[in-house]
Amino acid sequence: MKTYFPNIEKIKYEGKDSKKPLSFKFYNPDEIVMGKTMADHLRFAVCYWHTFKGTGSDPFGPGTIVRDFASASDPMVQAEETLYAAFEFFTKLGVKFWCFHDRDIAPEADNLTETNARLDKIVAIAKKLQSDNGMQLLWGTTNAFSNPRFMNGAGTNPSPEVFAYAASQIKKAIEVTKELGGLGYVFWGGREGYETLLNTNMGRELDHLAMLMKMAVDHKNKIGFTGQFYIEPKPKEPTKHQYDFDAGNCLAFLRKYDLINDFKLNIEANHATLAGHTFQHELEMSAINGALGSIDANRGDEMLGWDTDQFPTNIYDTTMAMYTVLKHGGLTTGGLNFDAKLRRASTDITDLFHAHIGGMDAFARGLKIAAKLQEDGVFENIITQRYAGWDKDLGQKIETGKMDFDALEKFTIENGEPIVQSGHQEMLENILNTYI
Amino acid sequence: MKTYFPNIEKIKYEGKDSKKPLSFKFYNPDEIVMGKTMADHLRFAVCYWHTFKGTGSDPFGPGTIVRDFASASDPMVQAEETLYAAFEFFTKLGVKFWCFHDRDIAPEADNLTETNARLDKIVAIAKKLQSDNGMQLLWGTTNAFSNPRFMNGAGTNPSPEVFAYAASQIKKAIEVTKELGGLGYVFWGGREGYETLLNTNMGRELDHLAMLMKMAVDHKNKIGFTGQFYIEPKPKEPTKHQYDFDAGNCLAFLRKYDLINDFKLNIEANHATLAGHTFQHELEMSAINGALGSIDANRGDEMLGWDTDQFPTNIYDTTMAMYTVLKHGGLTTGGLNFDAKLRRASTDITDLFHAHIGGMDAFARGLKIAAKLQEDGVFENIITQRYAGWDKDLGQKIETGKMDFDALEKFTIENGEPIVQSGHQEMLENILNTYI
Amino acid sequence: MKTYFPNIEKIKYEGKDSKKPLSFKFYNPDEIVMGKTMADHLRFAVCYWHTFKGTGSDPFGPGTIVRDFASASDPMVQAEETLYAAFEFFTKLGVKFWCFHDRDIAPEADNLTETNARLDKIVAIAKKLQSDNGMQLLWGTTNAFSNPRFMNGAGTNPSPEVFAYAASQIKKAIEVTKELGGLGYVFWGGREGYETLLNTNMGRELDHLAMLMKMAVDHKNKIGFTGQFYIEPKPKEPTKHQYDFDAGNCLAFLRKYDLINDFKLNIEANHATLAGHTFQHELEMSAINGALGSIDANRGDEMLGWDTDQFPTNIYDTTMAMYTVLKHGGLTTGGLNFDAKLRRASTDITDLFHAHIGGMDAFARGLKIAAKLQEDGVFENIITQRYAGWDKDLGQKIETGKMDFDALEKFTIENGEPIVQSGHQEMLENILNTYI
Amino acid sequence: MKTYFPNIEKIKYEGKDSKKPLSFKFYNPDEIVMGKTMADHLRFAVCYWHTFKGTGSDPFGPGTIVRDFASASDPMVQAEETLYAAFEFFTKLGVKFWCFHDRDIAPEADNLTETNARLDKIVAIAKKLQSDNGMQLLWGTTNAFSNPRFMNGAGTNPSPEVFAYAASQIKKAIEVTKELGGLGYVFWGGREGYETLLNTNMGRELDHLAMLMKMAVDHKNKIGFTGQFYIEPKPKEPTKHQYDFDAGNCLAFLRKYDLINDFKLNIEANHATLAGHTFQHELEMSAINGALGSIDANRGDEMLGWDTDQFPTNIYDTTMAMYTVLKHGGLTTGGLNFDAKLRRASTDITDLFHAHIGGMDAFARGLKIAAKLQEDGVFENIITQRYAGWDKDLGQKIETGKMDFDALEKFTIENGEPIVQSGHQEMLENILNTYI
Repeated sequence: MKTYFPNIEKIKYEGKDSKKPLSFKFYNPDEIVMGKTMADHLRFAVCYWHTFKGTGSDPFGPGTIVRDFASASDPMVQAEETLYAAFEFFTKLGVKFWCFHDRDIAPEADNLTETNARLDKIVAIAKKLQSDNGMQLLWGTTNAFSNPRFMNGAGTNPSPEVFAYAASQIKKAIEVTKELGGLGYVFWGGREGYETLLNTNMGRELDHLAMLMKMAVDHKNKIGFTGQFYIEPKPKEPTKHQYDFDAGNCLAFLRKYDLINDFKLNIEANHATLAGHTFQHELEMSAINGALGSIDANRGDEMLGWDTDQFPTNIYDTTMAMYTVLKHGGLTTGGLNFDAKLRRASTDITDLFHAHIGGMDAFARGLKIAAKLQEDGVFENIITQRYAGWDKDLGQKIETGKMDFDALEKFTIENGEPIVQSGHQEMLENILNTYI
Repeated sequence: MKTYFPNIEKIKYEGKDSKKPLSFKFYNPDEIVMGKTMADHLRFAVCYWHTFKGTGSDPFGPGTIVRDFASASDPMVQAEETLYAAFEFFTKLGVKFWCFHDRDIAPEADNLTETNARLDKIVAIAKKLQSDNGMQLLWGTTNAFSNPRFMNGAGTNPSPEVFAYAASQIKKAIEVTKELGGLGYVFWGGREGYETLLNTNMGRELDHLAMLMKMAVDHKNKIGFTGQFYIEPKPKEPTKHQYDFDAGNCLAFLRKYDLINDFKLNIEANHATLAGHTFQHELEMSAINGALGSIDANRGDEMLGWDTDQFPTNIYDTTMAMYTVLKHGGLTTGGLNFDAKLRRASTDITDLFHAHIGGMDAFARGLKIAAKLQEDGVFENIITQRYAGWDKDLGQKIETGKMDFDALEKFTIENGEPIVQSGHQEMLENILNTYI
Repeated sequence: MKTYFPNIEKIKYEGKDSKKPLSFKFYNPDEIVMGKTMADHLRFAVCYWHTFKGTGSDPFGPGTIVRDFASASDPMVQAEETLYAAFEFFTKLGVKFWCFHDRDIAPEADNLTETNARLDKIVAIAKKLQSDNGMQLLWGTTNAFSNPRFMNGAGTNPSPEVFAYAASQIKKAIEVTKELGGLGYVFWGGREGYETLLNTNMGRELDHLAMLMKMAVDHKNKIGFTGQFYIEPKPKEPTKHQYDFDAGNCLAFLRKYDLINDFKLNIEANHATLAGHTFQHELEMSAINGALGSIDANRGDEMLGWDTDQFPTNIYDTTMAMYTVLKHGGLTTGGLNFDAKLRRASTDITDLFHAHIGGMDAFARGLKIAAKLQEDGVFENIITQRYAGWDKDLGQKIETGKMDFDALEKFTIENGEPIVQSGHQEMLENILNTYI
Repeated sequence: MKTYFPNIEKIKYEGKDSKKPLSFKFYNPDEIVMGKTMADHLRFAVCYWHTFKGTGSDPFGPGTIVRDFASASDPMVQAEETLYAAFEFFTKLGVKFWCFHDRDIAPEADNLTETNARLDKIVAIAKKLQSDNGMQLLWGTTNAFSNPRFMNGAGTNPSPEVFAYAASQIKKAIEVTKELGGLGYVFWGGREGYETLLNTNMGRELDHLAMLMKMAVDHKNKIGFTGQFYIEPKPKEPTKHQYDFDAGNCLAFLRKYDLINDFKLNIEANHATLAGHTFQHELEMSAINGALGSIDANRGDEMLGWDTDQFPTNIYDTTMAMYTVLKHGGLTTGGLNFDAKLRRASTDITDLFHAHIGGMDAFARGLKIAAKLQEDGVFENIITQRYAGWDKDLGQKIETGKMDFDALEKFTIENGEPIVQSGHQEMLENILNTYI
């Protein structure tokens, strides 16, 4: 059988002192952490778009990356070869999940019928490859933002014909996700936002978007797809203003249109920081709203104002992310999807392995540190102590609704100035550093 | 009677060709615009904190501004003199509304009882001055962020005793707002957020904040206060992360805790831009959620990352803000409150007049341009045309829930590629410029 | 002769009350402002890359814009047709200058010799078209950033062979600029910066860049090209960190390597704001260093962190830019080049005219307001007054080096606390508004 | 003798497994790293302003921090007690350097003569305390930004009388720095910038600033002060735009006015990030210009747009900073000054120790990692290899000026397309992580 990575063997765990670049130093899939294997905690997924379709192009230059599997001139042959290469990559890397947009795996044709036929053909191959390699689809999705027809939006398009086209794509994408046993389906509305308010009816566009989501839920139920639906927040880019700005804005939307029980969130690190939040903040915000679904594991560059989609390597970030994930019970349907791309100048095929290994090791390390922090009760004990008043008389009366403003004023007048305690932030940051 | 602005006469409208700096060039209070006076459209309010309590201090130096009315050594005498000066200022400027925090108008004492007594004393004077001068209180509020007791939050404090103290302050502030016939009451949670997630129980803190809001609503009903409650979004500063990040995050909170019918939003321009939104975006977002309440009329500096609270002078911004306000029916209980402060080096008493005149003229001009845009139907006609498909067969079927994914797919297969139309953004921006 | 804009007539000045979108409302080329025609003040140039080669592609989707002149399959035929279309556009728009990169006007071939031959062929046509249409080349440049060979930099590449290739391109580009009578030549180092310091020798790279610049100066002298050399600052994008960060960083480089007399700066509005400066700041910084050369007239979006390259429409910005330009004697070799692109959804050919008309009107208006401000001496009188002390005894002694620390201490002890005057910022902003 | 930190013993190195919060886990002063003690590498300094004068005030509330040593009502008694407390703190913490502004250590009086007399009195005590405790002054400076007289600038003030006052302060501050054997003197121009260009003569202001610097150099020579002069870049805050924006802008200024040999730079991490640069970038930029002087060791919050001045705890940042420092030969006259302040809610006296311990440990760890990276030649070998072409024939000919554009074009035509190599950024980031 043809191989696309001939000089690469299956990546193995060799421990932190290994000097072999193409090995895991920290990610040991079968190692038990807090009662589960690392693989079960982390549920790594490779994304198809960046990893197999990325070329290194940017607004100032075309692609720099040339791949054997993308060399065929017939787009369907190219699609098949890329699919085989992908599964070879998954296997050699040792991940169990993948994610894709419909258009990543099968090229669009001149009309929807033919486009769908092409997709079906590739999906059939993918289904067999999944089965042969023990792979699962973490989530599927449609690309309703690249084609010029979506330049003014998909579900929020001023034209209902484009809405219909987007709905048709989503329908098919949900169906192939079901066919592949996908655990979830993501909505990222790349052009669901506006370029200028001068030509935009924001209220009506959001009503339409909600209608699209309701139809998707209905279709999901109709066909018996049991995967989880996710919305992925992003504040800006490609549009000037994306409606799904951040977790809070998505939750406001989901609650307004009574969709809160049908969707969770897919939080991306780089989208969080573009919105002015830390990655952990967005995870925590999702979790306390019962909406922590899945994670796009990447990182941005804090000095840059666009979506750099870099592979995650910052141990502080992976630690705090996994800390919040563990605190809230771990990932269930979701996973850690590397929505990350090689730098434009990382043109070697080995760079693709280095990049994923680095991301997996960074999260493995974050998991282990976070687990140790949890097991030692480091911050939880301090937090419990800090809020102890709320577990006592006054606190409990307030929490259970037994106090009103009159009673609280009476309490304050009788008790005078409350004692105020240091937040000890610097000490806590030092403690964190002893675990890093 | 003592005067604090002896060389300043009542500011008059003199038209745009006047060269007199201390005059209105555009704000003509009785001029009718779209069937209402400019005064009724704009409902300008002067804020007490910046205008009468501001000293020009910043993190790198103490105050530079010295005022006669703040020269008394006895804090209550100072408070009274400041109040008289304020009403002289309101009158000379020709505004009909004002806003304050409890601590702006009356100094805090050693205990809550005495603090409240001081407040009552000043409020009594204010009530008479309102009556004598035909002034109204646009909204009142409490300062539950400056005192060190609130350093870890007020309603979101880890200590229920501080929560109780905050509740007592809010109670009293609502009561004095009622006493003064206030049209609204604002919640700006200056320390309702976190400095580090390492010591924070975000979920519990937000539950407490919601409980505080519910109690406030109960108390409002109990005492028969009929003013409007507002929440004021801000993304950061003073805390690293403010829970009321932006309109979307506030709406998510209000919907989650079933408070959406009890609160509207008080949108501040500078808070909008700090959150990565335009001023108009936040107004529009509020309006389409039925939550456009009141406005803090200022501006930030797009090159700076903190709350500069400058007086609004950008005609584009005031135009688009008033455009959205007019489109959604105008302000009702709310108004345009100048939450804006003099630059540290603007130390003359006349600078206080220049600043407010500039802000009032900028909004008057914005109102007139926005009204003309509305009357000419400039953008509305284009928008109606752009979304015309939604008023026809397919669009109406979708909007009224008569289509599902199967039907839409059928439609798409039958109709093929939709026609896509230019958004004409540049042309629209040019048209806007012909109105500026 | 074939026409590419068949429904567009020459754009005429019709005055500000005209309702005809395809007309100038403010730009009246022959109108005299401060002793010169508007055309001579503004020296508008159309850029070839965005206007004729732009397709609307972005990182999330391919091009949306389809042009007749780009429909030929043979790249050289396409290049010729595009050139004819460009000159038709220049003429219909009524601009007298254009700008291009070598690769915009002629497609790259398989080797440099053939590439240069193609360029020569197109340049010959361009030369005739210039002559026929009374057009001038404002500046030429090379594209040494798009081709994958430059992915790690051009003059700052780790490989001297790439340096040599870049030098060869620059050589040819300077030569064809000379051939076309170009008034200047711009260096914008799209990849002259770094992606990560982990693999970068910053000191050595900058030494190489300086060497490249010296060679360019030598070659310019050798061939007798008398145009002005410009460096264009940009802080980031495409690289994580561009060496030519802003005017200050460019000046530091030019002074360090003794190139300060050979280069001026080409200031772009959007690059200024990405660097945390206002457009006017960068112009002023250039001017006080004798380096105000030419201008890339566009605008960014302050809420977005990337180079949006929008057409300039903000009257405040064009006013303050022209104010600084007029104050420092106007543009000489440089001009206002619209380095601006249509929004991705502005797909009609008329949008191209709307966009340029909007930019030209915005700068015409800015020019007229700035001229009025200058003629009235509005700010200059206030500034002269504010710094009056420096024209008197103490100030003059200091400026002329006649005081030292001992003398100044003596003066201070004798004279005591200095009088400090208000900066009156709000009043000045109001005055500006009366001119807008 | 009175003690101000009665429950704190001298902080000791206890190794990384110690659970004692008030101990060093990594900073072992006498440990030899690359041939020098850690103490000699790191040269930690405590800053007087934040550590002993900071109260936790912010723009939204007054101070929260209460210290015994600041309890005296007489300002000179308070100054003396604070000084004794400071030296007790230095000793218990185990640092050998400190830094101060004149106004931190001695309160300003009604006139300069008396102010200077107060300063002399405190300096005499400080001199003795230095001698008794083996302490050195890393650098001194004046505060010419807090007093209202400087609200419009010090050296860049529109009034020469204020310039004279600033000069008098600088004169005295240099003299007391000399008296205390200070190793350096820092210029941080807190108000040397502008609030609005509408009232600013930027060119003239910068000429004045240069004149002030020249006078300072002259005075330094006159009195025989042999310490190093430093300029500290900062892009904004308190002014809208600070002239000393970043290293590049400072270098441009120093070169323009021929001051480059008299000044080095004092790089602050938080100022770097506010300017859009990484900390390491600014250090590298200084170093390659021969201007790496001293370091203000703190950190900002990448999500916040103001100077948060947090204690440094990020190991990546301290590693890369020390990596650049080691690469360029280490610190000589300069040191690592903790220009960092406690969070407003960190009100305990122990928090002051935690904060400094955390910063010292973070830099000790960074030093050790950086030394290991250097010793292993990790990145240097890769970089040498990457630029190897420059050490060979073509590269050397270019570097030594033996090639011109004609020769390079000939080379390119003969040699064709250069080979382009992957930058391997992801692999390098992974390698870095194995050292963290």
